Amino acid sequence: MAKVKKAPRPKAETPKGFRDYFGTQVTERTDMLRTIAGVYHRYGFDALESSAVETVEALGKFLPDVDRPNEGVFAWQEGEEEGNGDWLALRYDLTAPLARVYAQHRNDLPTPYRRYAMGPVWRNEKPGPGRFRQFYQCDADTVGAPSVAADSEICAMLADCLEAVGIPRGDYLIRVNNRKVLNGVLEAMGLSEDTQRDAVLRTIDKFDKVGESGVRALLGKGRLDASGAYIDGVGLAPEQADPVLAFLTSKGVNATETLDNLRAAIGTSEVGAEGVAELAEMADLLAAQGYGTDRIEIDPSVVRGLGYYTGPVFEAELTFEILDEKGRKRQFGSVAGGGRYDDLVKRFTGQSVPATGVSIGVDRLLAALHAKGRIASDAAGPVVVTVMDRERMADYQSIVAELREAGIRAEVYLGNPKNFGNQLKYADKRGSPAAVIEGADEKARGVVQVKDLILGAKIAENATLEEWKERPSQYEVPRDQLVAKIRDILEGQG
Amino acid sequence: MAKVKKAPRPKAETPKGFRDYFGTQVTERTDMLRTIAGVYHRYGFDALESSAVETVEALGKFLPDVDRPNEGVFAWQEGEEEGNGDWLALRYDLTAPLARVYAQHRNDLPTPYRRYAMGPVWRNEKPGPGRFRQFYQCDADTVGAPSVAADSEICAMLADCLEAVGIPRGDYLIRVNNRKVLNGVLEAMGLSEDTQRDAVLRTIDKFDKVGESGVRALLGKGRLDASGAYIDGVGLAPEQADPVLAFLTSKGVNATETLDNLRAAIGTSEVGAEGVAELAEMADLLAAQGYGTDRIEIDPSVVRGLGYYTGPVFEAELTFEILDEKGRKRQFGSVAGGGRYDDLVKRFTGQSVPATGVSIGVDRLLAALHAKGRIASDAAGPVVVTVMDRERMADYQSIVAELREAGIRAEVYLGNPKNFGNQLKYADKRGSPAAVIEGADEKARGVVQVKDLILGAKIAENATLEEWKERPSQYEVPRDQLVAKIRDILEGQG
Repeated sequence: MAKVKKAPRPKAETPKGFRDYFGTQVTERTDMLRTIAGVYHRYGFDALESSAVETVEALGKFLPDVDRPNEGVFAWQEGEEEGNGDWLALRYDLTAPLARVYAQHRNDLPTPYRRYAMGPVWRNEKPGPGRFRQFYQCDADTVGAPSVAADSEICAMLADCLEAVGIPRGDYLIRVNNRKVLNGVLEAMGLSEDTQRDAVLRTIDKFDKVGESGVRALLGKGRLDASGAYIDGVGLAPEQADPVLAFLTSKGVNATETLDNLRAAIGTSEVGAEGVAELAEMADLLAAQGYGTDRIEIDPSVVRGLGYYTGPVFEAELTFEILDEKGRKRQFGSVAGGGRYDDLVKRFTGQSVPATGVSIGVDRLLAALHAKGRIASDAAGPVVVTVMDRERMADYQSIVAELREAGIRAEVYLGNPKNFGNQLKYADKRGSPAAVIEGADEKARGVVQVKDLILGAKIAENATLEEWKERPSQYEVPRDQLVAKIRDILEGQG
Repeated sequence: MAKVKKAPRPKAETPKGFRDYFGTQVTERTDMLRTIAGVYHRYGFDALESSAVETVEALGKFLPDVDRPNEGVFAWQEGEEEGNGDWLALRYDLTAPLARVYAQHRNDLPTPYRRYAMGPVWRNEKPGPGRFRQFYQCDADTVGAPSVAADSEICAMLADCLEAVGIPRGDYLIRVNNRKVLNGVLEAMGLSEDTQRDAVLRTIDKFDKVGESGVRALLGKGRLDASGAYIDGVGLAPEQADPVLAFLTSKGVNATETLDNLRAAIGTSEVGAEGVAELAEMADLLAAQGYGTDRIEIDPSVVRGLGYYTGPVFEAELTFEILDEKGRKRQFGSVAGGGRYDDLVKRFTGQSVPATGVSIGVDRLLAALHAKGRIASDAAGPVVVTVMDRERMADYQSIVAELREAGIRAEVYLGNPKNFGNQLKYADKRGSPAAVIEGADEKARGVVQVKDLILGAKIAENATLEEWKERPSQYEVPRDQLVAKIRDILEGQG
């Protein structure tokens, strides 16, 4: 055996694709999750926190290769020695664990079971810019409710959530589609072969990117993509592709017109008629609760998730424009999505259990609120009590204790107090609204100096250093008026 | 190759040692973490959420065996094929990631850096009853502050946290010790050999379990343990063991007496004198802020963590008695601990950076509050609006929308409405305070029926089924007085 050398210094780095969140990056998300949890709770949903680790078996990834299972998840094998224990993995979403939880605890849980879950999930994917291997999901699902009343409730709740976190009505739109209508269209087209149906489904999925003419080409002979490569088409005749295009472009000026267009597209298909009836019922239910088409509307051009879901599908978009990194205007786009998936629990129990749910992308929502300047960032640093005399630390601690008692965020400077400039630099770095100074002279006279750092910063923007030193952003106040003075400064704050 | 068979049904189970948390188990913890975060914030600490996944290298576990590294952590190897990438692992605490974060971002972070962190950690250990492989930690640490002012601040903050979550003054005690005093004692004993010092340290660690006489025996020839096995001792002569026992039992009637006893135990040791001075300074600082010995006191019998920490060590105990599973009274015990550890960042940077911190055991604290009946469990289920007529779902949805608008948790029954008894059973399972009934008759007369399920349950406890049916826990109210009636019922609630 080789001799063990002293280990070199470890690199202080997160693994590739992972990151840390600091200060308000954490608290803004925590606040948003709390707000959303409040809405979910009011709708009767209960919290669930499942374990972050699941068996690979329960997650529903099988083992194509014993040596390297689970592409897409972080997985490892249990046991004293490799090769003899269960494979475990980090959850990749919150839906697969819900299926396991419901199957495991179904005798103790109410039916229907409404639950919400919030937390990180992990994906073993190639990281990219803005693309991380750990991120938050924030889901609500109803298990065991077959009717579209459950789906429309989820859509209404989603609208309430968006408004609760600060997206005003008019700045978002929840668009609803239905997989059964699409199935009806495929039936009307006479596509009996599964492979051809799957090819059409995959093509429809590109509607967002390539638009009507692109989908038409891809359903037919094919098309050149942006990179110049030729993409083979499904090979349908133009008239065979018509029903699909009719479906995707069936949105009318109101729900009645849209539903009429859909009825035309599905021909005599029963499942298609069922889908149209579901959309009509959702529109009625939502209207009865006061959710008009300014908030939730039927829109058959929503294709995201149509391949995965089995009934209603919905997506929330922010409709305002923001400037992208190149200064071009663009729509902010999707921040939440969901739908009905009726076969998830069946894997475990053999019984089909209806389920519907939504996942809100909290990090995208936070980004949207930032882009619109609508987040009230509680980034205020603490009042910093400086240390003029190392021997009188107890005095400074009493001052902060008094400030905290009054509900004011405050701390004593705990670095090396020798260089007073460093203490003020520290206060600056913390974003402190004020610094408190009590030297021997102030102590003797029963006063303290208070530096208004917010005002100081404003003055500094427009003044030379000399001017800045002269300006009255520093006040002397009697020691017993310190709390009141600090309050004044905080209230003068933007 | 063997033919691939259809996979059997997966087991719906969490992996061994993992569990799920439901409803109030989640929200009570969330609320507690939020309360503690509020205190941490007021003390000037900033939130940090580091990634759950770290490189094994950064976590500080080395690889004793290339085939099976990282006993104690969940780890796996990156890369397309096994054997060629970085080893990654789930964090086992929040301190090791803090060291990595501080080393990585030290040029951007303020010094001192006060941060708090809350979240799950994972341990790859044999699970046992009440012992899980994923659990929460809730830490606050100050990095870069060398003085004991930082340690005393942490102790004061810990007291504030305990009171904020509902442990009243008098029901907890934070006990403070100092590793340097122990080092002084070891020096005074003339134990120069590291191996002998380590043996003494390990023995002291058993003081909580075996008491004074046990430690004396283990420092000498050894003793029989409870199972009848003979445990070899360190082999010190009785008089050599005296200073250690003097240290452990040095607590006097007040801080002055304790400090005097400690001074006697350390002889002429310089590091020992430094430790005693630190304890004295902490006592002064805490007294100046109003934290008396009813909340925080010097107690050299605190041994937990003395082997790990380098300066002050502290532990919070709940001092009230609870009944254990066998009905015997016992002290609830420790709920938080911490201390100073000055070498953690050095592994990365080569520079020693002083750090001190505390970790609060939120799950133990929750258990304590439950044991004392002090948790205000917000377990109230939603008002359930029953479905009498499937065709009028829109009406029922309007009723819940109205209730939610008024801030009342409410939902429509979304299961199969055919059996009305099932709807009431569901409401019961959800812990609903009330059920609302609007049949065709009520609709026509402009009224609704409201069942007070809280009152109903109370009556049911003392009544026969026949009596129960007769009792007036069901009211008919005009439709427009529904919200007011539900409010009355909710306010009558315990």
